[in-house]
Amino acid sequence: MIHEEQESATTKIDLRSDTVTKPTEEMRAAMASAEVGDDVYGEDPTVNRLEARAAEIFGREAAIFVPTGSMGNQIAIKLHTQPGQEVVCEARGHIVDWEMAMVSAFSGCHLRTVAGEQGVLTWDRIQPALSPKIYYRAQTGLIALENSHNMAGGTVTSPDIYEEIWCGARDAGIPVHLDGARVFNAATALSVGVAELTSGFSSVMFCLSKGLCAPVGSMLVGSRKFIERARSVRKMLGGGMRQAGVIAAAGLIALEEMPKRLHEDHANARLLAEGVAALPMVDIDLSTVQTNIVIFKVRGVSNVAPLLAKLKHRGVLGGSAAADQIRFVTHKDANQAACKEALRITNEVLNGN
Amino acid sequence: MIHEEQESATTKIDLRSDTVTKPTEEMRAAMASAEVGDDVYGEDPTVNRLEARAAEIFGREAAIFVPTGSMGNQIAIKLHTQPGQEVVCEARGHIVDWEMAMVSAFSGCHLRTVAGEQGVLTWDRIQPALSPKIYYRAQTGLIALENSHNMAGGTVTSPDIYEEIWCGARDAGIPVHLDGARVFNAATALSVGVAELTSGFSSVMFCLSKGLCAPVGSMLVGSRKFIERARSVRKMLGGGMRQAGVIAAAGLIALEEMPKRLHEDHANARLLAEGVAALPMVDIDLSTVQTNIVIFKVRGVSNVAPLLAKLKHRGVLGGSAAADQIRFVTHKDANQAACKEALRITNEVLNGN
Amino acid sequence: MIHEEQESATTKIDLRSDTVTKPTEEMRAAMASAEVGDDVYGEDPTVNRLEARAAEIFGREAAIFVPTGSMGNQIAIKLHTQPGQEVVCEARGHIVDWEMAMVSAFSGCHLRTVAGEQGVLTWDRIQPALSPKIYYRAQTGLIALENSHNMAGGTVTSPDIYEEIWCGARDAGIPVHLDGARVFNAATALSVGVAELTSGFSSVMFCLSKGLCAPVGSMLVGSRKFIERARSVRKMLGGGMRQAGVIAAAGLIALEEMPKRLHEDHANARLLAEGVAALPMVDIDLSTVQTNIVIFKVRGVSNVAPLLAKLKHRGVLGGSAAADQIRFVTHKDANQAACKEALRITNEVLNGN
Amino acid sequence: MIHEEQESATTKIDLRSDTVTKPTEEMRAAMASAEVGDDVYGEDPTVNRLEARAAEIFGREAAIFVPTGSMGNQIAIKLHTQPGQEVVCEARGHIVDWEMAMVSAFSGCHLRTVAGEQGVLTWDRIQPALSPKIYYRAQTGLIALENSHNMAGGTVTSPDIYEEIWCGARDAGIPVHLDGARVFNAATALSVGVAELTSGFSSVMFCLSKGLCAPVGSMLVGSRKFIERARSVRKMLGGGMRQAGVIAAAGLIALEEMPKRLHEDHANARLLAEGVAALPMVDIDLSTVQTNIVIFKVRGVSNVAPLLAKLKHRGVLGGSAAADQIRFVTHKDANQAACKEALRITNEVLNGN
Repeated sequence: MIHEEQESATTKIDLRSDTVTKPTEEMRAAMASAEVGDDVYGEDPTVNRLEARAAEIFGREAAIFVPTGSMGNQIAIKLHTQPGQEVVCEARGHIVDWEMAMVSAFSGCHLRTVAGEQGVLTWDRIQPALSPKIYYRAQTGLIALENSHNMAGGTVTSPDIYEEIWCGARDAGIPVHLDGARVFNAATALSVGVAELTSGFSSVMFCLSKGLCAPVGSMLVGSRKFIERARSVRKMLGGGMRQAGVIAAAGLIALEEMPKRLHEDHANARLLAEGVAALPMVDIDLSTVQTNIVIFKVRGVSNVAPLLAKLKHRGVLGGSAAADQIRFVTHKDANQAACKEALRITNEVLNGN
Repeated sequence: MIHEEQESATTKIDLRSDTVTKPTEEMRAAMASAEVGDDVYGEDPTVNRLEARAAEIFGREAAIFVPTGSMGNQIAIKLHTQPGQEVVCEARGHIVDWEMAMVSAFSGCHLRTVAGEQGVLTWDRIQPALSPKIYYRAQTGLIALENSHNMAGGTVTSPDIYEEIWCGARDAGIPVHLDGARVFNAATALSVGVAELTSGFSSVMFCLSKGLCAPVGSMLVGSRKFIERARSVRKMLGGGMRQAGVIAAAGLIALEEMPKRLHEDHANARLLAEGVAALPMVDIDLSTVQTNIVIFKVRGVSNVAPLLAKLKHRGVLGGSAAADQIRFVTHKDANQAACKEALRITNEVLNGN
Repeated sequence: MIHEEQESATTKIDLRSDTVTKPTEEMRAAMASAEVGDDVYGEDPTVNRLEARAAEIFGREAAIFVPTGSMGNQIAIKLHTQPGQEVVCEARGHIVDWEMAMVSAFSGCHLRTVAGEQGVLTWDRIQPALSPKIYYRAQTGLIALENSHNMAGGTVTSPDIYEEIWCGARDAGIPVHLDGARVFNAATALSVGVAELTSGFSSVMFCLSKGLCAPVGSMLVGSRKFIERARSVRKMLGGGMRQAGVIAAAGLIALEEMPKRLHEDHANARLLAEGVAALPMVDIDLSTVQTNIVIFKVRGVSNVAPLLAKLKHRGVLGGSAAADQIRFVTHKDANQAACKEALRITNEVLNGN
Repeated sequence: MIHEEQESATTKIDLRSDTVTKPTEEMRAAMASAEVGDDVYGEDPTVNRLEARAAEIFGREAAIFVPTGSMGNQIAIKLHTQPGQEVVCEARGHIVDWEMAMVSAFSGCHLRTVAGEQGVLTWDRIQPALSPKIYYRAQTGLIALENSHNMAGGTVTSPDIYEEIWCGARDAGIPVHLDGARVFNAATALSVGVAELTSGFSSVMFCLSKGLCAPVGSMLVGSRKFIERARSVRKMLGGGMRQAGVIAAAGLIALEEMPKRLHEDHANARLLAEGVAALPMVDIDLSTVQTNIVIFKVRGVSNVAPLLAKLKHRGVLGGSAAADQIRFVTHKDANQAACKEALRITNEVLNGN
């Protein structure tokens, strides 16, 4: 007991999410010296630079800076759909569970969910979920995918699967949006560029926060016309910030510098995954550990909350993707040593269970 | 060929749905002589009589007449929820597939769907679909059930299953609405009264059209306060008709006279179901044939559209609950002889397939 | 007192609105014998006949039958707009005050109201209310007009005024909808056909109830494509009735037979108006009495509710367009004799005031 | 010409809005060193400090940080209302013209606008705009006021006027929200504290940007329960930022240090206003110049755009509150000397007109 309390005072390894990453010193310096203007008037030079750079990296005409990934997704969904339509997406997609029913509350669309294999949707599964062309059926307005897929454990979808989806959707006249909150993780795992990986999507959202470590901010990329319309919807949602250059400055560094280190997070996730896989009471499908997320079960445990509390007491913060699952996410602020330590503590806690 | 054309000219057995039922002569006479007034002012005596009678039969304080079952369901969902909440329902519920995404487009709620056994949801399946009480999760606002369950083949849910749901929902502080479009079919099959079968629901919608044969109209029943608020939402949806007594007059007869004959439709459905079950190429689960709906597959046929076209050519109109399913619905305007004839023609068409 | 009570028992002249009109014997007979089918499947021959006839009379490609004028208006507004746009309309338009905020609640649009002269909007007044083309301003999606204008006292707008509006709106790329709930009254007063009067509108709604006396129902007319889309929105709103032919049968008679008698209602309104104008305590602008509505004030009376109660006690039911205004509406069920009697009683009540 | 070009290269006085203010050096330093955490988990210490301090200054239980004033207003409106209700506000309120129809598109409410005297609404004007309690009328859900009133020229409403409104609204059971984007300007002009000035409002939004010079951010204050619910709506709108402490750090300085200098902006506005008032061709109502906004007309000029272009060419950026009005807004980044220079250039431009 005494030992544990001591440890809880000193250790603090936060593996709940990569959203907890803190800005780097370089980011902080950039924020302090950022050139700014009023972005509602399109006059913030730092924001403009960030938007131009994001568009360039994704091979698109334009990009827009938004305060959160949720706002980016919801803007895209709003623009692609009409109220009373359906959005086809994976059953455990972020827009299903973590965006406050806004596909319904703001876009007025029904989420037609389809279970994917390890979170991966193929055209074979999507096609039957499209609405028949009957006037008294809600019509499919959008297909929305996610890569990497958070709730499926950071699994990735490869370009060849997308080729078929883009082709089928184009034939059906249906746009396809990518929730690429962690698309740099996916691209890293697949060893492709993000532009190539996302070339056929009608629009792509990605986050500067999370693995890329910016304190605040995400980007939505697409055609010039689409992004122009996105500015209006961002204003609707209250996302038209003024001297946003102060945060865009950090975002620029996130975009330029941070993707190249994501492979470290993936290696640490692999280390953690293989570590827990070696524990006799752990059930884990190592094939799902493709990026920076590790999800596992503990045999005989249907509710992991008490285990998470014990881990927290020992200084390791974890999360949960379902009542019977523990979820660890690796990131810049939990280096290899920290992950090894987290593994050691997890081992002790599970053994003491 | 010649024979078939002749037959298609003379035979016409419409088993697509019980929505095709036509008003009886008694209903037509009642419509012609109905006492009417302006129902927006609450002054139509025939509507008032129908609403009072519906409330009485369901053991409720009040009822409201609406032009369609969809409007009745959507009014109830609107009143029970807030935009940004979730509505838990069965995966193939009428509100999921056949009400034009209005749970999203009008109530702003996300449909959290759960697959039931033969369309039947139990508390065991509902409870895990309720949202955790976290501020960044959309909260469950309503549980919406359907009895009999149309897309599952007219299957019924029994009072004991409801007892557990009502109890669990009450503890969770969540209202429960019943889409009872065919609740008189369910009550007939279960040999209980509709008041008993629905006593624990926060609100119930049922149709005067469909099996009860009124040309137009459905009812929503509930507490006096709930129905008062429903009048405002009905006005929002454009359902505040004026001299509605002309159709309510037919509805009164539907309500009083037609439930007692539903057992005939069920017997005819059973006759049809057992008849097709005897055909070697047919797959049917006879246990689902509990009311007036018959759903079956034809071995080796993944798309029944050509078969339906052949049946239609022979004068038998059927429908489909999925690409590989034929669906027949029995009703007043297809008596035993007609069902036998439909069975004979189906046999011939399938054999000729 | 005794005299009054006696009178209230025998007299009943309802001038609250022309919505109180009851179906004619001919309509009742037609309802009783109407050929019907399932209109959701497009198979109700009487509904189809009514829709074809309405389209023909208005010189349009297509029409759709809806249970109420409010639903017709809201369908049109939904189809012409996107959420987040503005709808320009007259400050006291029906869609502003009497359609339950549905322009906001269903179409998600802001009503940009402009005061008209006697309810009449000209392009001079409309044009400045159009939004500037700036991304951070909600854009104008629709201009919605009303003819005759209910709350302004049944005033009419003439074709020449519309010509300018249609032209300006076309140049601005903005559709124009007509709430023609009483467009046959307007056409009668202007001595033009409804087709000519409404030829430049993108869509027109008109009521079969009100002055035309059908018990239930209104029509929306427009292009074939527009009406096809309207079927989907009608289904969303719960207006997809089944054997609607029973009410459409009455609507057909309303459409064919009743417009020709509206001049009688106008004459009776004029009679009433001139009668009250002769009373010393009455303020009335006779120039507004152009159709079947009469609005007047009583000097020194800021709240007419007590006067309306006295009138009601004497068997005359009136309404109010504002706290200090009495409003009488003439119609088939209040003939010349009844209007004279109403005038006599009004005179006595006001003198006794 | 040469002179002007030279000037345009060197002068730059931006009086379009106080939204153009740039962060101070102190703010930049605070941003660079801010202690941060994940605010979605409630763990950002700087955000928490800012929220506690805002609540304290306004004498409320709680506060929430939002990226923009528009988001703060829309969260409040959403929480106080139900779709299908009405929000009473001044005819030229910010929520009417500058928040993208979101009262309709997100809250589903109709804006019932009332013209105020110099933008000031009194209970006398508000009370008649409340809906009658009739089921077929949209009910009033909220009264939303603005202080200072932007489009009316920065005019202020005094506490005694509010006392009557708060009292009337309380009796009517209707909440009252304050759009206090510039409430510190109003309080400065009225020489009262913001807590006193706003004590009877159900909720208050105020901006850290604008006159207070923070780069990004606004606050919504209210009861603990209200702010808890506001967190959910902020998440809906995509305003749940992560390490928001980096911007909250600047906000804290804005809140503590900047209100005390607003009187300088007001003095400069007065200087500008009196200066233009002395020009013969200018029409200005000096009684409206109560805070940091100056609005005036130029005789014979119905469209000020060409004048604004000339001013811009000379290095003075102004805006417009209507087609025939020039609008100058004073702020930290346009000191007395700059305002004098702007006045000199305005004089020259208007004389050369």
